[in-house]
Amino acid sequence: MAITTKRAPARAGDGLGAVDTPALLVDLDAFDANLAVMAQRAAQAGVRLRPHAKAHKSLEIARRQMAAGAVGVCCQKVSEAEVFVRGGILDVLVSNQVVGARKLDRLAMLARTARVAVCVDHPVQVAQLAAAARKRSVRIDVLIEIDVGMGRCGVAGPDEAVALWQLIRSHSGELHLRGLQAYQGRAQHLRDPQERRDAINHAAVKAVQVRRALQAEGAVITEITGGGTGTYVNELDSGIYTEIQPGSYVLMDADYGRNHSDERDAPLRQVIHVLATVISAHGDRAVLDAGLKALSAECGPPLSAEPGWLVASISDEHVVLRRQGGAAFALSSTSASASMDAPAPGLAALVPAVRSLEPGDKVRLVPSHCDPTVNLHDWYVALDGDKVDAIWPVDARGAVF
Amino acid sequence: MAITTKRAPARAGDGLGAVDTPALLVDLDAFDANLAVMAQRAAQAGVRLRPHAKAHKSLEIARRQMAAGAVGVCCQKVSEAEVFVRGGILDVLVSNQVVGARKLDRLAMLARTARVAVCVDHPVQVAQLAAAARKRSVRIDVLIEIDVGMGRCGVAGPDEAVALWQLIRSHSGELHLRGLQAYQGRAQHLRDPQERRDAINHAAVKAVQVRRALQAEGAVITEITGGGTGTYVNELDSGIYTEIQPGSYVLMDADYGRNHSDERDAPLRQVIHVLATVISAHGDRAVLDAGLKALSAECGPPLSAEPGWLVASISDEHVVLRRQGGAAFALSSTSASASMDAPAPGLAALVPAVRSLEPGDKVRLVPSHCDPTVNLHDWYVALDGDKVDAIWPVDARGAVF
Repeated sequence: MAITTKRAPARAGDGLGAVDTPALLVDLDAFDANLAVMAQRAAQAGVRLRPHAKAHKSLEIARRQMAAGAVGVCCQKVSEAEVFVRGGILDVLVSNQVVGARKLDRLAMLARTARVAVCVDHPVQVAQLAAAARKRSVRIDVLIEIDVGMGRCGVAGPDEAVALWQLIRSHSGELHLRGLQAYQGRAQHLRDPQERRDAINHAAVKAVQVRRALQAEGAVITEITGGGTGTYVNELDSGIYTEIQPGSYVLMDADYGRNHSDERDAPLRQVIHVLATVISAHGDRAVLDAGLKALSAECGPPLSAEPGWLVASISDEHVVLRRQGGAAFALSSTSASASMDAPAPGLAALVPAVRSLEPGDKVRLVPSHCDPTVNLHDWYVALDGDKVDAIWPVDARGAVF
Repeated sequence: MAITTKRAPARAGDGLGAVDTPALLVDLDAFDANLAVMAQRAAQAGVRLRPHAKAHKSLEIARRQMAAGAVGVCCQKVSEAEVFVRGGILDVLVSNQVVGARKLDRLAMLARTARVAVCVDHPVQVAQLAAAARKRSVRIDVLIEIDVGMGRCGVAGPDEAVALWQLIRSHSGELHLRGLQAYQGRAQHLRDPQERRDAINHAAVKAVQVRRALQAEGAVITEITGGGTGTYVNELDSGIYTEIQPGSYVLMDADYGRNHSDERDAPLRQVIHVLATVISAHGDRAVLDAGLKALSAECGPPLSAEPGWLVASISDEHVVLRRQGGAAFALSSTSASASMDAPAPGLAALVPAVRSLEPGDKVRLVPSHCDPTVNLHDWYVALDGDKVDAIWPVDARGAVF
């Protein structure tokens, strides 16, 4: 067995200075604000909210989402779904395709105690799923996924969907068609609000075409699910979606911060930071104890939330900060919609004084991409101001199966 | 506590088809070959080999390295060092700066049962380390790290080194200067062998300058350590280094595969792959069940080892493959020094036939960057040909403290 020496980086009641690093911080104020915004927006639109738990991987966060009105969660993997069902979240959509007897048997077992659904886009998945359900004497809900422009999973259009529906219907003892998944992942980070609107309008039109074709063949479509943190206002506005799946909204990151917003978008605040310690400092350079094993960087390096210091580079174990001459600026640590680009020249006057960084000083970083960053941590350190309120395990860390 | 449902993706004796995915594969043939090459090269040069365990994070691999003549391992974090000491590797260099009472106390505790050393480049580290050693009644070896061109950690030159030595000497009851660390991380992935040689020559010259200045002040320098998989031949050739620290050589990745080699470089084979399953397939597109939570991508997407299929994109949970028209080609899955770029037009005739990919088919991917990819997995699946020989835990996965 693995030898583990893991221990949480802090205890409830600790001050921020006592938190061991690198640590994944949650600003509870921002978390609560974002939780409320999404719940209100979905409720106002009369659309079900099923947050995506692949982003946060936390039972504590899922329970808080349920308490705020969510109908259940989405997962991307069967092993994630197991974590959430065992933790008491009894309505889980695996918003992804699953193949293989081992995984499908586990999914079927979950359907004995929870309301479980999974996406399909290919006859092989349907046949394997029906066999797994039969073996465990359960009936599993399926959603036909439509490729609405992402070029990843999903049937191409009505004809493929109808063929799949006929196969699903032939397994009516084991499978039940709940509806459609029409998720446009590429649209989440389109910077311009009009581009995002256009992409989701296109998705909605395609979903309606497929729904009509399936209804003509006798299918009952009770759900059209999709949407993410970047576009959920568009899915809510569409009048077509019955359920939205935002995940990142309870975390946020620098990449979402680069989206331009318009009057329809609700303000979402930056919730998570990675806290790091300066381990080496020479002149205008400070080196932090957090690198690629604490911060995912395929969307670029993290941003510094330390006034006057910018991220120069990231490597396996380190982030290097460089002190800015003259034009020091601060990244707002509370608003993800603040500009993450170069500061306006006049901004320097508005921000706190720049401190020198010495070994032992602690610095906050804004991850560039929240989902894979969370997956690098075992715990969230939930903060009430600068005081540790609680430690939340990242329960489904590493649940890739 | 966290709810976990983790289980290994295979058992010894399984065929490759029974391995659950995504899984981190080790080709034992390639592993043994690379292990032997590095051991021989170091022995021939009369230089100590201290492989970097931050790369593999595995006790099984560390034990095999020790059996092949390694003097101990490097780690980058105290929590990694704990895993290796508790697993019986009793000579560990933390080749990094460590600050903070909590971490340093744990380091001092390790020094009670193991030979432990750590790098310093700043007076704050030295003072904190001496205090921790005093508290636990141990004496800890230190290496003064020199910035030999990486612009990250390390003293700038002889004057800073001498000042640090004087501070170390003032704590002679708690600290002992073992020598110097002169690691040039940036040189590892310089593509041209001459550029790598030049960078390490520069590093060696600087190390000699610092050594001379320290010796003039009465310091005894018994170790100059550094080197990595990309440059170890240059450190061995230098005549200055007494120890090398390569890590990736027992794993390898697409980024190392892009280095050009010359007659001095030993051939290192690609050891690890990520095995993934096709979950969706439509026409010339196949979608795999491995994404950014199974493959680190800050050095670019992984490479496909499936003949005729190229990686089109990677996202949180998926890799999308595209079938190549006509000019299908295979990435060699056994040689990291093979070209990872577009194939020569005439190569198509040399490679296996291109198969159609359907849901359930399994595909190998070459990670673009091995260290952070390994940190995404809980197990290695060690393969003897296409049969599972053993499951090795990634013991120090997530050891970021």
